[in-house]
Amino acid sequence: MQETLEPYSGRRVLVTGGTGFIGLNLVEALSRSRASLRVLSRSWPSPSPAARRLFEKVEFVKADIRDEVAVESAVKDVEVVFNLAGRSGATVSNTSPLDDLDVNGRGQLTLLEACRKLAPLARVVFPSSRLVYRPGERLPVNEQAATGPLTIYGIHKLAAEHYHLLYRRSYDLPVVVLRVTNPYGPYQREEQNRYGIVNWFIHLALKGAQLPVYGDGGQLRDYVHVDDVVSALLLAGSCDAADGKVINIGSGEATSFLEMANTIVHHAGAGGVQSVPWPADASRVESGDFVADTSLAARLLGWQPRMRLDAGIADVIGRYRAAGPA
Amino acid sequence: MQETLEPYSGRRVLVTGGTGFIGLNLVEALSRSRASLRVLSRSWPSPSPAARRLFEKVEFVKADIRDEVAVESAVKDVEVVFNLAGRSGATVSNTSPLDDLDVNGRGQLTLLEACRKLAPLARVVFPSSRLVYRPGERLPVNEQAATGPLTIYGIHKLAAEHYHLLYRRSYDLPVVVLRVTNPYGPYQREEQNRYGIVNWFIHLALKGAQLPVYGDGGQLRDYVHVDDVVSALLLAGSCDAADGKVINIGSGEATSFLEMANTIVHHAGAGGVQSVPWPADASRVESGDFVADTSLAARLLGWQPRMRLDAGIADVIGRYRAAGPA
Repeated sequence: MQETLEPYSGRRVLVTGGTGFIGLNLVEALSRSRASLRVLSRSWPSPSPAARRLFEKVEFVKADIRDEVAVESAVKDVEVVFNLAGRSGATVSNTSPLDDLDVNGRGQLTLLEACRKLAPLARVVFPSSRLVYRPGERLPVNEQAATGPLTIYGIHKLAAEHYHLLYRRSYDLPVVVLRVTNPYGPYQREEQNRYGIVNWFIHLALKGAQLPVYGDGGQLRDYVHVDDVVSALLLAGSCDAADGKVINIGSGEATSFLEMANTIVHHAGAGGVQSVPWPADASRVESGDFVADTSLAARLLGWQPRMRLDAGIADVIGRYRAAGPA
Repeated sequence: MQETLEPYSGRRVLVTGGTGFIGLNLVEALSRSRASLRVLSRSWPSPSPAARRLFEKVEFVKADIRDEVAVESAVKDVEVVFNLAGRSGATVSNTSPLDDLDVNGRGQLTLLEACRKLAPLARVVFPSSRLVYRPGERLPVNEQAATGPLTIYGIHKLAAEHYHLLYRRSYDLPVVVLRVTNPYGPYQREEQNRYGIVNWFIHLALKGAQLPVYGDGGQLRDYVHVDDVVSALLLAGSCDAADGKVINIGSGEATSFLEMANTIVHHAGAGGVQSVPWPADASRVESGDFVADTSLAARLLGWQPRMRLDAGIADVIGRYRAAGPA
């Protein structure tokens, strides 16, 4: 990780959404660099002492991503923006589409407009999602595959990708879009656990509960450790070859849902796996099997996922046991 | 046209945006049917007596598409919704992205939410745009071609397409999406002429002015007469085979920009053609050559474009001369 942090030495870096799941992991990594770090988030202070310690040397801006004045002030003179603020939760997005639009649509335009006006040279790194792809594409899925999101969340992620590429084309704003698969790892807030299935299952297993597996659990997913996502974000923020590109970030490995659940129970030494029927809301947004082709990330960023699922789950269980959730 | 109107006899039909360019043409056609017609628009009364006459037998709801209460009341008990309300203008959308999002993003979700709650069996016909396609696809472009809009307007049209398909998948709301190329015809309001290049040029020529052609005018376009668009809308609103489909609507013929301008000057017997350098805002959103493959519309809707450009322009010039713009 240290060499990916080197380019940030002395640079002014903004992380929006820096108190979310990926945000806290990114802030933790950047706090080991010599970057001048600013975080914009509306969720603070955190109940977790571990998370609060991360922010001791950070300039914290408590504001909503839709707050034009606050966002303009936050981006001023910044050289890199990790544009992480937003509303998670693909299934829930379908039941509150207007809220999702407001945060994930208007919020993104507010940030990009602020960069255009006040930080036109800042590189903006935007984590999108594998949920922009149309289900049923050939595996592994590369960046040329057809898009066709099934959820409001995915629709707005795709629109935000297009916003970023438009601001680059129209205003020369440097941007990189990363399409992240299913991230898991430490610092997922308790109330957001359902948005990250692996983390939710880890918490269930540690409590000795049953992990609900829909149907036969055969659907394939690409689970990626958040440390790998963080190193991809850091590389994307400092690599000129990535400018204007859309790049998959995943493990590149297909794991069945059932295998993921069994691995968690095994490493937790607790809990169990229970087959349950597909809930209606989940089956309507089921994206089918998915595995990312990550060769473009290797070529452009020199990035490789380092943590395989078995070791990754063991790592995360160890870290949650040591520290508790953020 | 009469046979495409037959299925509307006795049906309750809502046209949102019924005072816009396509809206007025659709309302004129439907006023010859025995449909029970309701129009929602925030722009009324029109300065044009011809347009006002169209609304004598129409239930008019003066409201904004973002007004949840008004939209819910407008969709109640309706059987077909022609979802035309929105903000036109691809180039201008890039300079006011938040306004475009509010009307063309939030407005669309507001309408679909209202249908889900109060008109769950209504068929919603949504006119999207060829501007959702990625430039540089092989001509003629069919509905499987890659998307990749260059403008905020195109980004929000694409998001709205996805919204419609989502409401069908999640709530069984019947929907049809039509991707319309470059429509022209009567009833374009004077102040919106720049959003429809053919209409703008017709007005310029009739005033004896020069028609500005960017560069060599060689870029190919697919200009479609609004009467053909209206018949496609009417067929889409009454054809079960179209449910859930995305369908190109265009002339299927490639015409160079210069040829279009020359045809207008010829039929107007006035004005002239002037080559001008590409303006920066236009060149940034230039979509390259475009011609639609309309074979899916022929197969699913039994639709064919009837008006070729030469006859279409002669027709429109005659109608503008007779009536003046709406």
